[in-house]
Amino acid sequence: MLGKTLLVAGLLIGLATPAPASPAPSMAQILAQSPPGDWRPVDPENTLYLNLAQGRVIIELSPIFAPNHVANIKRLVRAGFFDGLAIVRSQDDYVVQWGDAEAKRPLGGAQRALKAEFDRAYGAAEPFAPLPDPDTYAAQVGFAGGFPAARDPRSHRTWLTHCYGMVGAGRDNDADSGSGAELYAVIGQAPRQLDRNVTLVGRVVRGIDVLAAMPRGHGDLGFYQTAAERTPIISIKMAADLPPGERVKLQALRTDSPTFAALIHNRRFRKDDWYKTPAGRIDVCNMPLPMREARN
Amino acid sequence: MLGKTLLVAGLLIGLATPAPASPAPSMAQILAQSPPGDWRPVDPENTLYLNLAQGRVIIELSPIFAPNHVANIKRLVRAGFFDGLAIVRSQDDYVVQWGDAEAKRPLGGAQRALKAEFDRAYGAAEPFAPLPDPDTYAAQVGFAGGFPAARDPRSHRTWLTHCYGMVGAGRDNDADSGSGAELYAVIGQAPRQLDRNVTLVGRVVRGIDVLAAMPRGHGDLGFYQTAAERTPIISIKMAADLPPGERVKLQALRTDSPTFAALIHNRRFRKDDWYKTPAGRIDVCNMPLPMREARN
Repeated sequence: MLGKTLLVAGLLIGLATPAPASPAPSMAQILAQSPPGDWRPVDPENTLYLNLAQGRVIIELSPIFAPNHVANIKRLVRAGFFDGLAIVRSQDDYVVQWGDAEAKRPLGGAQRALKAEFDRAYGAAEPFAPLPDPDTYAAQVGFAGGFPAARDPRSHRTWLTHCYGMVGAGRDNDADSGSGAELYAVIGQAPRQLDRNVTLVGRVVRGIDVLAAMPRGHGDLGFYQTAAERTPIISIKMAADLPPGERVKLQALRTDSPTFAALIHNRRFRKDDWYKTPAGRIDVCNMPLPMREARN
Repeated sequence: MLGKTLLVAGLLIGLATPAPASPAPSMAQILAQSPPGDWRPVDPENTLYLNLAQGRVIIELSPIFAPNHVANIKRLVRAGFFDGLAIVRSQDDYVVQWGDAEAKRPLGGAQRALKAEFDRAYGAAEPFAPLPDPDTYAAQVGFAGGFPAARDPRSHRTWLTHCYGMVGAGRDNDADSGSGAELYAVIGQAPRQLDRNVTLVGRVVRGIDVLAAMPRGHGDLGFYQTAAERTPIISIKMAADLPPGERVKLQALRTDSPTFAALIHNRRFRKDDWYKTPAGRIDVCNMPLPMREARN
């Protein structure tokens, strides 16, 4: 057995009484003791449901980091732009991508190209909860608004990081050529070299396992070579546009909460019956970002 | 389009004449100009063929880092231990795992438990080609014998790192309970917290895309809940036990070669028509380890 208990949202609901206190509480115990104020509802106005035959993939958008791209994506979604399109690319250890591969479909009033939103001034993304450990790619890494992020104390700029499950807006060679009409999700080792080279717009908060298990494409860059290999997109909907009873009422652990700080400590100094040598460190892309479903 | 040209082994053979020299040669150009001595044959005595209906997965074992586990795995393979077993676990963003889930099959003379091989003295794994960039988890990271690795200049110990595609020997809570009869491969963000907690034995050098696209298991830790979900293992064979004509003649770029040093520089300062801001850094788990197939 290789020991790892990855947090699964649903497991938090109906969790049994925590075991008696021990010197190192488990992640589940820490979450079970979290006060309600350490959680935030995931805003239906910033939530996409990507509906596939395999299930529903839920994406939280980040208007803090990519306001113009997020607004444009919402326009595209509400115009039905994505409905009937497909997953067109699955490149192993990299990304899955979807959109209008032929770029023929009208954009329903959305922009065809936007100025890049690669980073933001500090003030736009406060509070920033820093990790204490060194990072290969950035002077400082941590979390802002529920997302993994990095920042540079010299330039006072901050940006989202390309961790597993992050969603970005594909672009052509021109930095200002993305629009959100072509989106990708990371399904492999964090391609951090993309940070500040492409606009990240959000994160898959449920269903990344569905995207990550898609058969790989065998064309260049993992594009599928035939239409038959593509997975059709039934529709993409804004959660806010569904009747409340049809929405998934997700709550995210606030990344500026004491509970999240305790979880970071727990994951850095992981010690249990299985782990022998705690790393004493954690990478920004290895930190679970807990979600749960609210009871009605 | 999201630009990334991931190295695919087969593409290197029959590569067209490189484009005219430019200030920043591409990875393909660097490889096309590599002298033969910068490549090493992958030793058939340390190569496993994991045969599945979906195709053949090729694993290179590392007797330098895990001599006893590798010897034991070879005994298991040659006794036919794995033939007819199955992939029993697929946990998203973590590992796929295979072996004898019921631990009922005779081991054919192999050991049932081995002393952990979590790390080695410096001398066992020379030369070590260090990366210049900071790492979250270790004092120094780099490459040794073709594998991603880390080391500690204070203790003079070195170890393999849990990057995408790395293969390890599952164990129970006892550090000395692994044997190689249960193996896993990493299919997500590098779980570096496992370094020095479990014995790594090698790396998938071809076919990790097949393992990574397996449907996820929905039991605890990603174990499949029914036998029908498991992918049968047709067989695992040592390459050396096949007639030469049936072997894949893989060559690996030597990680102590000038060509590999040039590639590291190329990937750290990646600049082309698409990339706008080179990271100037690279993570040990983001560095491609080029393989090619020798012409007969």
